Amino acid sequence: MPLYMDVHENVEGLTAEALAEGHKKDLEVQHKHGVNYLKHWYNEQEGAVFCLFEGPSAEAGEAVHREAHGLTADRIIEVKEGT
Amino acid sequence: MPLYMDVHENVEGLTAEALAEGHKKDLEVQHKHGVNYLKHWYNEQEGAVFCLFEGPSAEAGEAVHREAHGLTADRIIEVKEGT
Repeated sequence: MPLYMDVHENVEGLTAEALAEGHKKDLEVQHKHGVNYLKHWYNEQEGAVFCLFEGPSAEAGEAVHREAHGLTADRIIEVKEGT
Repeated sequence: MPLYMDVHENVEGLTAEALAEGHKKDLEVQHKHGVNYLKHWYNEQEGAVFCLFEGPSAEAGEAVHREAHGLTADRIIEVKEGT
């Protein structure tokens, strides 16, 4: 299944707690879209979040975020893991 | 040790082979800067690379790329891994 990195920029009021709550909601709905969130990284001060997921398409990942909490990514890039 | 994500955008002529070669050079010099590259992901068509590393500072990661192959990142963001 393809792998994607999504990038959220300048998320206002980002906190570790809010992110953990949002991510929990992602995990609750991801199966409806065939998506599997693998890892994510964030910077509260910059409001930046990177989510690594596998799924059938970039749109499927967007749909998970939209359904879970409405905070969709600014960019979703299909990636391969380097060796 | 702090964790960082660096982002390379619009790398011209990016190929998996060139990236693997560059990454190999990163690994050869990273110890001089106290850096440990953990993972990286890329998209050849978009010329995008994301590198996850731990190190003493963003500047130390930049110094590794500069010494190894000269292709420094567009952005280096300190991150925490989400749970």
